[in-house]
Parts: sequence; C-alpha cells; structure tokens
Amino acid sequence: MSDQRVYNFSAGPSMLPMSALERAASEITNYQGSGMSVMEMSHRSKVFLKIHEETQAKLRRIMNVPEGYKVLFLQTGATGQFSMIPLNLMGKTGKADYAITGNFSNLAAKEAAKYGKVNVVASSADKGHTYIPTQEELKLDPEASYFYYCGNNTIYGTEWQYIPETGDVPLVCDMSSNILSRPVDISKFGIIYAGAQKNMAPAGLTVVIIKEELAGKYLMPYAPIMMDYQLMIEKDSMYNTPPCWDIYMLGLNLDWVEEQGGVAGMEKLRNLRSGMLYDTLDNSRLFTCAAEKGSRSGMNVAFRTGNEELDAKFVAEATAAGFVNLKGHKVAGGMRASIYNAMPVEGVEKLCDFIKAFDKNNG
Amino acid sequence: MSDQRVYNFSAGPSMLPMSALERAASEITNYQGSGMSVMEMSHRSKVFLKIHEETQAKLRRIMNVPEGYKVLFLQTGATGQFSMIPLNLMGKTGKADYAITGNFSNLAAKEAAKYGKVNVVASSADKGHTYIPTQEELKLDPEASYFYYCGNNTIYGTEWQYIPETGDVPLVCDMSSNILSRPVDISKFGIIYAGAQKNMAPAGLTVVIIKEELAGKYLMPYAPIMMDYQLMIEKDSMYNTPPCWDIYMLGLNLDWVEEQGGVAGMEKLRNLRSGMLYDTLDNSRLFTCAAEKGSRSGMNVAFRTGNEELDAKFVAEATAAGFVNLKGHKVAGGMRASIYNAMPVEGVEKLCDFIKAFDKNNG
Repeated sequence: MSDQRVYNFSAGPSMLPMSALERAASEITNYQGSGMSVMEMSHRSKVFLKIHEETQAKLRRIMNVPEGYKVLFLQTGATGQFSMIPLNLMGKTGKADYAITGNFSNLAAKEAAKYGKVNVVASSADKGHTYIPTQEELKLDPEASYFYYCGNNTIYGTEWQYIPETGDVPLVCDMSSNILSRPVDISKFGIIYAGAQKNMAPAGLTVVIIKEELAGKYLMPYAPIMMDYQLMIEKDSMYNTPPCWDIYMLGLNLDWVEEQGGVAGMEKLRNLRSGMLYDTLDNSRLFTCAAEKGSRSGMNVAFRTGNEELDAKFVAEATAAGFVNLKGHKVAGGMRASIYNAMPVEGVEKLCDFIKAFDKNNG
Repeated sequence: MSDQRVYNFSAGPSMLPMSALERAASEITNYQGSGMSVMEMSHRSKVFLKIHEETQAKLRRIMNVPEGYKVLFLQTGATGQFSMIPLNLMGKTGKADYAITGNFSNLAAKEAAKYGKVNVVASSADKGHTYIPTQEELKLDPEASYFYYCGNNTIYGTEWQYIPETGDVPLVCDMSSNILSRPVDISKFGIIYAGAQKNMAPAGLTVVIIKEELAGKYLMPYAPIMMDYQLMIEKDSMYNTPPCWDIYMLGLNLDWVEEQGGVAGMEKLRNLRSGMLYDTLDNSRLFTCAAEKGSRSGMNVAFRTGNEELDAKFVAEATAAGFVNLKGHKVAGGMRASIYNAMPVEGVEKLCDFIKAFDKNNG
C-alpha cells in the first residue's frame, strides 16, 4: 500500500486532474447540499438537469461549438459510433469514404460495410500505419454519404495534422484520443465524437458533437432506438437514463481545462509534453519512434528499442520507478506513452530523465 | 447548503448504501495503493481486471447464477436491451411473445416489432396497468423465439408474483427495478437484465445474465457490433472499454448486500418496507393505491388522493420534510415511493409517520 500517486501513461482510461478527483471526493455523499450523491440523483431532477446543462454549456464554450450543432452524451464508446454513423448517414447514397490509418479506423470501416459500400480513400497499412496520407493522396468519392477518419491513432502514435478538404461531403471524425487537446474549427465537421475515457471523463460516456441538419434524414429502419441521432437530439440525450456520474466528472474536468486556459492552454501543454519526449527519444542511442516525423501524435508516443527483451526491461524498470502502463498495444509491440491533457508536465520531465538514464546504462 | 442526507424515493437513479459511497470516497484518488483512481485505470490492467472479476463473482454468488450462464456488464440501459434481445433471438422463428404490463414492456414490444412479429400474450392496458395477468390469461405461442416480460413496473407499481411457465420458449425478463431484492431461480430464465441505476449501481451500467447457449445462433446481419451477445460473452464484456467506475460501485454495493444477508436479507427488508407503507396507505382516509392487491410491487408504491391539488400539497410538504422525489411519473400522476434495496427501513418508517400526520391534518 502506498499513498503516492503514480504517473499513469495508460492509453485510456487515463489520468484525470487531481482537482476534479478531489472535488468529487468532497461531495460524493452530499452534492452541494442536495442530501445525495450525484450517483443517486434522478436524471430528471432539477439538481441533475443543472449539472447536465452546465456541462454541455462548458463544453460548447471551451470547444467554441457553433449554432446548429448539438452536444450529445451517449454510451458504448467509439465502437458504438462505428455502427451509429452509417445507420444514420449511409442511407444518403449507400456509400461512404473511409481513411484507414490505424486499428480503429479499420474497425470502423469493417462495421460500416454492414450497412453500405465502403470506399477506402487511403490506407497507411502499406507502411504499418506509421504515417498519415496527404490531402492529395485521398481518393475521394464526391458521392460519398460522408468521409470518416480517426484524428489520432493511439496504437501507432500518428495524428492528422490537417483537416481533410472534402467539398460537400460531411466530415466525420473520431477524436477519442485528441479531443480538447487543441483548438478545432468545429464548423468544418459534420460529426465529431470521442469516447470520454482518454481526455474527458471516466469510461462509460461518449461525447458526440453533431451538425443537427445531418440527423433524422436517412436513418435505417432497423436501427436500434438508442442509435437514432435525431431522437437523442430531441430528447437532449435523455431518452433514457444517461451516465450521470460521467457527465458530472466531465464537468469537473472542464472546470480544470478552463483554469488552464481552455484548449489553447491545453495545446501549449501538449506541445511541451510531446516536444520534450520526442526530443529525448530522438537524441537517445537506443530508442526509435515508428511514426514519421510529420505524422507524429501529440498524445500517444510510440517507441521501441528494436529488442523485445530490452523493451520488457524498460517497461519493468519504469513501472518500478512509478511510470506505469508504458507497454505498447499488443498489435504494435514496443512501448507507448500516452500523454493526455491531465498528464502533468512534471510526469513527462521525469520520464525523460528516466529514459536518458536507461539509455546511458544499457546497450 | 445542508450536510444532512435526505430520504430519496427516486425511481432511479436512486439511493446507494452509505458504506459504498464512503468507501468510494476514501479511495477515489488512490485505489488500494495503486496510485490512481478506479476512474483512471486501464480496463486491461491487472488491478482493474481483479475488480471486474470479483464483481462478477460476487454477483454470481449472491444471485446463485448457475453454470452455463454468463454475467455481462453492458451499456445503454433497458432501452438498449429492447433492441439487443430481438436482434439476437428473434431470428429463430421470426416471432416472439410479449406481455404488456406497463410502459416499459410496451416500449420493448414496439422496438421488437422492427425485427419480427410480436405476439401480445396479455395486456393490462384495459385496466390502466393496475394488475398482472395470471398464467392462465397468457396466450402463449409455442413457436415464439422467446417470451418477454418486465418483472416489476416502476410507473404503475405492479410486480409479477410468479415466473411464467412457457415450456421450451426461453424466458426473457427486465428486472431493472427488482433485481437483487429477493431470491430468483435463474435457471428458469434465458435472459435476465437490469439497468443498474435502481438496485445495483450508478447509471451507465446494464447487467445481463444470459444462458450462453442462446447467444450466437440467430444474430441479425445488421446488428451493431456492440449488440452481439456472443461477442460480449467471448470478450467478457471487454470488447471495448466497459463502464469501469459503475462496475466498481456495483462491487461495493454487493459487499453491502452480502453484509445484509444477501438476497434473502434483501427480501426481508423489502417486505418490511413495503408492508409498512401499504398498511399505512390502506389505513388512511385520503390515500388509495392503484395497483390491485395481488399485483402490488414491493419496490415502487404508487398512490394518490384523487385530488391533484392535494397530491401536489403532499409532495411539496414531504419534500420540505426531507422525503424527496415522491412525485409520480408523468404518465401516471399521483405519488410514487420507490423503496429499493438501499432505502433504509427508517426512511419508510418516517415516511409512514408523515403520511399519517398528513392524513389526519387534511380533508
């Protein structure tokens, strides 16, 4: 037993700000004099509705969500959206564009193929998903119902550095692993969504930001009721009981984001963390980063020594030193440091020191 | 602001045991020396897998779940199951039996009709859902893919007092509002499920107990990936990130249930609470219970004065006295006291005193 917090480099669920956790602890049996925990509140009660509305409002303010867009609090993560998106949008022309730049966009495309024709506009599989294709490389179909991509690839450590231009075809983006980490022009998107468990809140909440005019037009007749965007919009995510605690925790996290200067502040921290870490790895003798330089992720840094035993030694020694969850995803191997919003800069500084010492003492 | 806890008669989300809330508060920033909150843990980490496995094991032990059944931790509540059940089971014969005894079984039947032919075996709509049909009244179809019913009707305050006999047709039961409140012979069921936010855990978790041989046989080709029981069984509810915090809270609640003597203990408390409350209402001058005596719910007691103004006065005065969320559901009107597992007996005793005083002082 230790009362020390660790630096948790998990790809998700992942670190939350201490201020959010401490605030939650302080009111867990009695939220602001209501006489009950947020976990015990009727979702229809005034006290919870206020939490719900304020959390939506905070997110709209921080992300600068324009009029005509709705913020939804849903469930079942990115995988749920893999189905919900084609069930609601694919009916327009029966086909959709998918950019395959990693594991999750590949899974999304497979799921979409249940509901229509998937056009793979580009795939980075030829080089083990170590890069992001350029705008010129995208083989766009002007009749696509929508264009789908995953903005940041947690497993391979790559990230789109531009927003694709797709003309009149609505852009749909999985931002699970980089939402809230920098300013985004929402007006360029049809749908942005994120499983909340990386940069936003505990697992169990999926945040969807949808251009309202896209909903309700092409819903497939066999779409499950919980996968109807239009209904979720009409009912303000309360067709049935939402994940109330996760919404509350999102609100506490957003308070912290605002205190740090919003998404502009998050971007500064993100650049500081990832810049330090890539510099340290680039200047090491032992470590290489798989991702090409122009495609490197600011959130998930994938690296390796090229020697599995040495990788395992690194992970074991790092864990013992309080840097946990650095083992890479099973499909990629090596190491991965996920450095989401709530990772303190100090945690990355100390990890860099650890990497330098390991680099000096091995090989 | 008050530091007093209230008696919360919400139909859900609803009260949790104080011991569970206090335990959660005590380890919210550092779970058992792990250096992190349960909200921050990778769902693939050893520390979380232990929570996941132990929570499953506790539930199996308490509910006496037989071999051949799997406990799943899913999302999207009862409404998600309204779709998932026909998507997985309706394909056997293309039709299913539904007993309509309230709002939620009616919604379940409407959703199922997207996927096949729904045979309404009985409906209590003729008397405003104030009773549960008898076994003899059920017009069973021996070729039904399954038989569906809702074990307890939160809105109308009725509860099935018997398990329907359906021969070889698998029984599917929505136990959202009475699970864990008394012993149940699981072996008689194909699927039992419950939105966790009434008797089990915070909102965001759906517990499914499924006879494994029912899964994977008749999945419809357009079923969303998150609605495939077989996949959820194979992946032990971890195809993607589960609602980790809710699972943890379920575990803490189950510790409390075991301390109270398990489901036998819960049944004693349930009978004590509901017995007191029905006696008080039956012996009052002002109040009547809509539900027929043989069909009364042990979890949700629906009552009214017959005078809307007086009902409103009752609710207002009760709220001021610390008995909150007693207003009835909008489709039923009147009052409703939801007295789930975590409602202290003392809370019902005090509510009965309040009812007696109100009855004496009004009309």
